[in-house]
Amino acid sequence: MASSLSLSQAISFRTSPSHVYSNSRLPPSSLSLSSSSSSYLKSSASVSLSTRFLSSSHSNLGLISRAPVRAASVDTLEKTTDATLFEKSVNTIRFLAIDAVEKAKSGHPGLPMGCAPMGQILYDEIMRYNPKNPYWFNRDRFVLSAGHGCMLLYALLHLAGYDSVQEEDLKSFRQWGSRTPGHPENFETPGIEVTTGPLGQGIANAVGLALAERHLAARFNKPDLEIVDHYTYVIMGDGCQMEGVSNEACSLAGHWGLGKLIAFYDDNHISIDGDTEIAFTEDVNKRFEALGWHVIWVKNGNTGYDEIRAAIKEAKAVKDRPSLIKVTTTIGFGSPNKANSHSVHGSALGAKEVDATRKNLGWPYEPFHVPEDVKKHWSWHISEGAALEAQWKAKFAEYENKYKDEAAELKSIINGEFPAGWEKVLPTYTPDSPADATRNLSQQCLNALAKVLPGFLGGSADLASSNMTLMKMFGNFQKDTPEERNLRFGVREHGMGSICNGIVLHSPGMIPYCATFFVFTDYMRAAIRMAALSQAPVIYVMTHDSIGLGEDGPTHQPIEHLASLRAMPNLLMLRPADGTETAGAYKIAILNRKRPSILALSRQKLSQLGGTSVEGVERGGYIISDNSSGNKPDVILMGTGSELEIAANAADELRKEGKAVRVVSLVSWELFEEQPDSYKESVLPSAVSARVSIEAGSTFGWLKFIGSRGKAIGIDRFGVSAPAGRIYQELGITKEAVIEAAKSFF
Amino acid sequence: MASSLSLSQAISFRTSPSHVYSNSRLPPSSLSLSSSSSSYLKSSASVSLSTRFLSSSHSNLGLISRAPVRAASVDTLEKTTDATLFEKSVNTIRFLAIDAVEKAKSGHPGLPMGCAPMGQILYDEIMRYNPKNPYWFNRDRFVLSAGHGCMLLYALLHLAGYDSVQEEDLKSFRQWGSRTPGHPENFETPGIEVTTGPLGQGIANAVGLALAERHLAARFNKPDLEIVDHYTYVIMGDGCQMEGVSNEACSLAGHWGLGKLIAFYDDNHISIDGDTEIAFTEDVNKRFEALGWHVIWVKNGNTGYDEIRAAIKEAKAVKDRPSLIKVTTTIGFGSPNKANSHSVHGSALGAKEVDATRKNLGWPYEPFHVPEDVKKHWSWHISEGAALEAQWKAKFAEYENKYKDEAAELKSIINGEFPAGWEKVLPTYTPDSPADATRNLSQQCLNALAKVLPGFLGGSADLASSNMTLMKMFGNFQKDTPEERNLRFGVREHGMGSICNGIVLHSPGMIPYCATFFVFTDYMRAAIRMAALSQAPVIYVMTHDSIGLGEDGPTHQPIEHLASLRAMPNLLMLRPADGTETAGAYKIAILNRKRPSILALSRQKLSQLGGTSVEGVERGGYIISDNSSGNKPDVILMGTGSELEIAANAADELRKEGKAVRVVSLVSWELFEEQPDSYKESVLPSAVSARVSIEAGSTFGWLKFIGSRGKAIGIDRFGVSAPAGRIYQELGITKEAVIEAAKSFF
Repeated sequence: MASSLSLSQAISFRTSPSHVYSNSRLPPSSLSLSSSSSSYLKSSASVSLSTRFLSSSHSNLGLISRAPVRAASVDTLEKTTDATLFEKSVNTIRFLAIDAVEKAKSGHPGLPMGCAPMGQILYDEIMRYNPKNPYWFNRDRFVLSAGHGCMLLYALLHLAGYDSVQEEDLKSFRQWGSRTPGHPENFETPGIEVTTGPLGQGIANAVGLALAERHLAARFNKPDLEIVDHYTYVIMGDGCQMEGVSNEACSLAGHWGLGKLIAFYDDNHISIDGDTEIAFTEDVNKRFEALGWHVIWVKNGNTGYDEIRAAIKEAKAVKDRPSLIKVTTTIGFGSPNKANSHSVHGSALGAKEVDATRKNLGWPYEPFHVPEDVKKHWSWHISEGAALEAQWKAKFAEYENKYKDEAAELKSIINGEFPAGWEKVLPTYTPDSPADATRNLSQQCLNALAKVLPGFLGGSADLASSNMTLMKMFGNFQKDTPEERNLRFGVREHGMGSICNGIVLHSPGMIPYCATFFVFTDYMRAAIRMAALSQAPVIYVMTHDSIGLGEDGPTHQPIEHLASLRAMPNLLMLRPADGTETAGAYKIAILNRKRPSILALSRQKLSQLGGTSVEGVERGGYIISDNSSGNKPDVILMGTGSELEIAANAADELRKEGKAVRVVSLVSWELFEEQPDSYKESVLPSAVSARVSIEAGSTFGWLKFIGSRGKAIGIDRFGVSAPAGRIYQELGITKEAVIEAAKSFF
Repeated sequence: MASSLSLSQAISFRTSPSHVYSNSRLPPSSLSLSSSSSSYLKSSASVSLSTRFLSSSHSNLGLISRAPVRAASVDTLEKTTDATLFEKSVNTIRFLAIDAVEKAKSGHPGLPMGCAPMGQILYDEIMRYNPKNPYWFNRDRFVLSAGHGCMLLYALLHLAGYDSVQEEDLKSFRQWGSRTPGHPENFETPGIEVTTGPLGQGIANAVGLALAERHLAARFNKPDLEIVDHYTYVIMGDGCQMEGVSNEACSLAGHWGLGKLIAFYDDNHISIDGDTEIAFTEDVNKRFEALGWHVIWVKNGNTGYDEIRAAIKEAKAVKDRPSLIKVTTTIGFGSPNKANSHSVHGSALGAKEVDATRKNLGWPYEPFHVPEDVKKHWSWHISEGAALEAQWKAKFAEYENKYKDEAAELKSIINGEFPAGWEKVLPTYTPDSPADATRNLSQQCLNALAKVLPGFLGGSADLASSNMTLMKMFGNFQKDTPEERNLRFGVREHGMGSICNGIVLHSPGMIPYCATFFVFTDYMRAAIRMAALSQAPVIYVMTHDSIGLGEDGPTHQPIEHLASLRAMPNLLMLRPADGTETAGAYKIAILNRKRPSILALSRQKLSQLGGTSVEGVERGGYIISDNSSGNKPDVILMGTGSELEIAANAADELRKEGKAVRVVSLVSWELFEEQPDSYKESVLPSAVSARVSIEAGSTFGWLKFIGSRGKAIGIDRFGVSAPAGRIYQELGITKEAVIEAAKSFF
């Protein structure tokens, strides 16, 4: 059952000094029995944090310990003695959110007002970060899964001293060109870990971040040197809880035992449609227990500050399971007329209610004002953060001395700089290499890459033996073997995609791949879009990429998927035709560090073709064979993937009849479009309008390459359950069809 | 906690006659203490089922009872006394599956072999259906959510006497042109309720089927006449349990208290990647309890036949909650070397193992053989089914006499024939009507339609007040008010879509609509595709359809969505520009009974345009204004939705400069493509190559209409958080851009 921390429990918990001090920067005085006690920070300066934290760390010497290694001198820590400073800081957060939304006349004030206390505690007392280097590797990660409440995060980053959120940024909330968009965007605002807003994504991203930490810690930490050691914190709302993707990801987090993942569930009982009673009456705590989580319930999230603190401590103490801290709050806390209603969820309060809230919370300040004592207090994070990073760097130097090879690997993961010549490990093929399915050739590539890319890891949504995604030299990443690199996602495509977004955004050198049948990109499309938007270079290994999968039928046969994914911005859609092109596709996928790549791969065997090349793949479209001269073939045949062979075979026949035929592989439309016009003209000369395309998918979009006189051979209907060869015949995806179409031009 | 029915419990449960007889066709002798007792059907003929079941029904006279009204003479019921007949029938199912997969050399024998007992009990003892009329309205529904196990379903339909699955159909399993495709397809095989295969869809469909039953029962049943009264049964596997969509749908089923939904969870511990231990260790029963379900665990699903029966009775007795019956089985039961391994999940056993299994289970017959006594036994369902339907029809006649209006409404729902002139209620607009967002105009349409279409119901995924989807004359469909028609899905887009697929496939006159922001079609794309494939005419009300939503930013702004959905087969993508077109779009959506429709609607206000028309919408593309003659305008401007107004305004300016300009609305590409060439030529004459399109989305695909010389104004990047007007300006979606593009042709 969920434990609900009563105040007395919280107190008794906190009276155990070993619990209290080992995992927190909270000064002792803040542990007084009353949350309204006189000075939550008053004796901070009298305690050397570095002493306290290093002693905690030292106590673990000789053990493989997950206890945090804390450091940093805090001599600069402000000697604040104001009894009401905590409250004042919380209200600062609330009013920054209120004022920014009011100025923008758009936004979501309700969540920041309700979650300000937990935000304050996390960013001021719990989390380790360096505001002047938001990318410090060993920082604690925070994810606002309920992304609409982003003003909470912007206010916290602002107070904590991140350069990315200045006062003028708060004042330009949701405006063109600002760094404070309407939902948190990692690519706009340093300090934002992942892009959230679409509900459920953030918690799944956080599972990925926590997985990355656990994996790297298991691989690189040494008994004497814990070089990887951070927590991942999340705030999720009712909406996140309802989304299936969060259940998928949280089921995996429980299965993997990600003990350093701590999720706050902002239980405010309000969503856009009103009271959650109308659609959401499940027992969330019990569900999380069923998923293998440790569950705590803080019943007074509005003013029960010590309860929140105690819950975090309890969560940290449970190391074998992730923790859900359900925090019951009042949405729009402080607004006398709108709190606890959906009207405060997603609209500005309005001038009148802003005034009323100012009165109600005793806030005499102008909009966007941060009181001097609050400002002064928060300034300690700048020196603290610098000290934390410096101490970690010193530790890393020691690590590098002692463990050279591991340090080199970890460095590659931290920096995203890959070992020189990594691409040389990719397998090579000739036309004499045996015919094979590109899914099998893909497995050869990823097994080769796994040997040279330290951050390479991944897996399938319960289709490893169909997607051919196992790395043979590694075992499974599991609770007891987190150092391994084969991920087993179960039948959870959406969760898989969102988790991989978290993994890849953990560190520049993390390279996750994930796999399912190509048709099931539909299940994870929201995650793929978030990867594209977030500039998160996940690699999608999508096999069974056409009717060529045969008997499983139309529910499993992609038709519109190539077109629908080609239409998505900042995504590379690659459909290699043979081993050479598959290797090329992997090279592209690894090199592109600002966009994800989808590899569409065949279930069925394909011949190794003459004329394919890695360089060709890099250009997206290229000539694989041509018997014409002067850039004037009689006809251009083009195709992708499994149909390129059909085009090549058709060309052979047409050439026998004396025709000058060019065969073009259009393996990636996006890359081809990026080439200079002169190159494109050299491949698809505008003077040649006799063009035929063939692809076992929708013809939607092909007009761009075949031109107005061209002919597109494809499938603009759903597929059929039957052996693959028969479907190809019946739906006219054949050499004969290509020849007939070509001859229509002669 | 989950109740695990031990045999003794099952027995003690069954010794209560009132429990035992009231809800089942099971003859008394089958309730003997041993599952291997002599005759599970022996005294059937000596008991008049009609007497038994009618007396059960009579006992409820005067109450609003959910107890089934049973009927039918069973004089024809086979007087089977063979003690092993049950077992023999179960093995018949197993071997039909084994043999069909073997012949196809493709398929999934494991599930049918493990689930044959529960399938047998359901189709032979529990479910009410008429094999000669698979569309009988009041039939029990069965959904095989683990669709890959479809040979179980085909075998059962075959034995039960459905004309759709003859011996030759079993022999052509997974072949071109057969009625037995590789996954169950409702549009191929009468008797299949919904299309499954993509995991998790079926259980969510079943929630929709059960919702429809509960809603219709609440609306139409009378104390003396229960005219709507059936159960919905499901078999789901481990994969279905892992998918987030199933958690979403099951959370709603628990919230709604759908007591007549009974789901079997085939707990066989094996998925494609092997033992589910590697990715799926949550406590499923506890999760379902948290979701508000009644949970039963049958620990021996292989031979514990009486436990299965008792569990079903217990499930039926619990009327206020859906029931999950976890049935622990052995995948591939009977196969001596492959049972309980993933090798039996998705591949033919192979000749050798088929032989071994035949020996192991004592099966001396040729492939596809149905023993005579098994055949004879099952034949009772033909007369039983006819009698059940006849009795229901008699009851309906009585109902029609007593409750004329209700009967007319229900008939419309059953037949899918709408009241004459229904389309006349759609609101009309003129250019003088006030400017309004199409989401608001949409609400006017659906409120109008709700008055005349008895099967019209729907709602939003927690965005009712943003999507504008409330029907003002109705309350919320809730546990205690199931007669109401506003559905509240919570933040569960995928579940919403899949539930609507179930609702619409319940009866031809059910017309569900569902709503979210257009960008979140990504979350429910798998459900939308299943609707398109299943010929399920769900209406998708998708608002906030472009950058015009403004400040919420790129996570919420659709870009590629129009293109990606236009690429999907059998789906109508409609983007109306004003009130008239919105009404036209609804007319189209209602009229198309074999394909779903998506309406993309604006958040922002749009002018009512001159020249728009419902008839125009019906043709997909049409001229809204033109000052040219002889079908030779100087330029054609085309657009959709909110950008049509921009095109019209640009035309006004160009005309002032003396140009002959045609403005074309391309509200639905699919409908336009279906028009005769002569019509298309009249709208887009091939002689006019000066064409400009404008749409606030990806330009992908527009080439088809603008031609190789045309100019497409659109957005081929992600959006931005800012006020809408600013984004339009910055991204160049403006009148000025259209004019400039047009002038480039002059």
